[in-house]
Amino acid sequence: MDTNDELKSKFMEFPYVSASHKNLMLELLSSVDTRLGPSLQSCTLPPDVQHFGNPTGSARASLHLRSGLPSSQIDFILGGWIHCELPSGGALNITSLSAYLKPSTNAPHFLLDLIQSSPTSLVLILDLTPRKDLVSYPAYLKMYYEDTNLDRHRQVLQNLPEVKPYISPSLYIRSVVSPTAILVGIDVGDGEERGIEDIIEDHVGSVAKEMLDFWIESCACLERSVGENERGYLEERDGIIKRKTIEVDLGSSFPRLFGQEVADRVLGVLKEYYGK
Amino acid sequence: MDTNDELKSKFMEFPYVSASHKNLMLELLSSVDTRLGPSLQSCTLPPDVQHFGNPTGSARASLHLRSGLPSSQIDFILGGWIHCELPSGGALNITSLSAYLKPSTNAPHFLLDLIQSSPTSLVLILDLTPRKDLVSYPAYLKMYYEDTNLDRHRQVLQNLPEVKPYISPSLYIRSVVSPTAILVGIDVGDGEERGIEDIIEDHVGSVAKEMLDFWIESCACLERSVGENERGYLEERDGIIKRKTIEVDLGSSFPRLFGQEVADRVLGVLKEYYGK
Repeated sequence: MDTNDELKSKFMEFPYVSASHKNLMLELLSSVDTRLGPSLQSCTLPPDVQHFGNPTGSARASLHLRSGLPSSQIDFILGGWIHCELPSGGALNITSLSAYLKPSTNAPHFLLDLIQSSPTSLVLILDLTPRKDLVSYPAYLKMYYEDTNLDRHRQVLQNLPEVKPYISPSLYIRSVVSPTAILVGIDVGDGEERGIEDIIEDHVGSVAKEMLDFWIESCACLERSVGENERGYLEERDGIIKRKTIEVDLGSSFPRLFGQEVADRVLGVLKEYYGK
Repeated sequence: MDTNDELKSKFMEFPYVSASHKNLMLELLSSVDTRLGPSLQSCTLPPDVQHFGNPTGSARASLHLRSGLPSSQIDFILGGWIHCELPSGGALNITSLSAYLKPSTNAPHFLLDLIQSSPTSLVLILDLTPRKDLVSYPAYLKMYYEDTNLDRHRQVLQNLPEVKPYISPSLYIRSVVSPTAILVGIDVGDGEERGIEDIIEDHVGSVAKEMLDFWIESCACLERSVGENERGYLEERDGIIKRKTIEVDLGSSFPRLFGQEVADRVLGVLKEYYGK
């Protein structure tokens, strides 16, 4: 049985992805550690949920979940990577970092997924997910998205010739993200000019780091006053977001990737954090 | 002074746009007339709001607004066209049809805009706009958008090589539309193969007609039971949608196109329907 330190090392390995992809994840985790570490518990997942694979060994994953201390506005932060050999011969590699806040603040959640299913293409999902209906609460839209000019990050990537909008097949995911969400497919084609790893290094990295820094400083750390009614609203809406996220995202893919038994074990534990 | 019949004829002219574009608008208006006509009042706009231009004559517009009878679920339906010569030599032509429902039903509103600012390109906005926050109300998302497979219409257009996603500069517009909204730019380039009018005739037309028919049958005509609480919620959220629509859409462009005096007159009257 691995110790917690060994499990954390396995998580931090981010094997199977390019150096620039791994470095980006390590830099993001280091920002979280430096600025938010003192507000977070150590990872409380059981060892066989921190690192696991499927029976045949063709799929592996590491998850690292840290809950916020009672005094912190952070609910929990989940980092992870998934590797899965594909029947076609290639591999699927996903790395992700998501962070949920408590209803003591109404600031957006943070969401990052890098989904690579071929050496020349990548889907990037990067968003500060709104906690409130942006139609009913135009002041919320203004404060977090318009006045901050958050859309500039999306525009930077959108202008690259390799980048196209990515439209999720899930209508729920299209609905839950913000109007400045970065949902893009990056395809470098067969040319030799620049690979996915160059685009991560030159463009995706700086955008992801800036958005995470903004989230840490202006969302996770800045204290807001939230009234009793609003707190109830946030609690209910967050509950739906978290349960739906597990259902639509991990719940639909884990049984396929890891088999039902492993998926049940891992999802069972995650649902203690995401809600049932 | 024109009579109401003469004003209606001017509206139905849809001058300046191609035959297929005009025919599409006439077909949509004919569906509205046939199915919903008995539930609607005649146009109640003053003559100088039904048809107007700017002082120099370089911009003209027709608007036709019909409110629902008290017994109907329809709040009002607005059709219109705008023509404006551009300083660059070309012209901007917009045709639109939007329909709002009363809080006696929670079914989506209808929205269609065809915005042509060059002979070879067109922006199409076509949506059944949700009345409720789709995150807080997943059953609403399921009923109107998932179970109806509304996304198939967007997919049809998305697959055409001339079509690209259109990302509105307004974060509010990105937020208010549904996850199946058709927001696309169509660009036929300089080639001679097929023009915008062919794409309207072969593709846009059938999609717009199917979506309007679905809206008429399943949204405008089907009676729903809406409780007191939900009615209050819809009333408040619709109020924001309508006021914001005037502000973001017409309110920002009308003074530029028609001058402040004409814009004030027209917007002043429209705000009696959209709210102040």
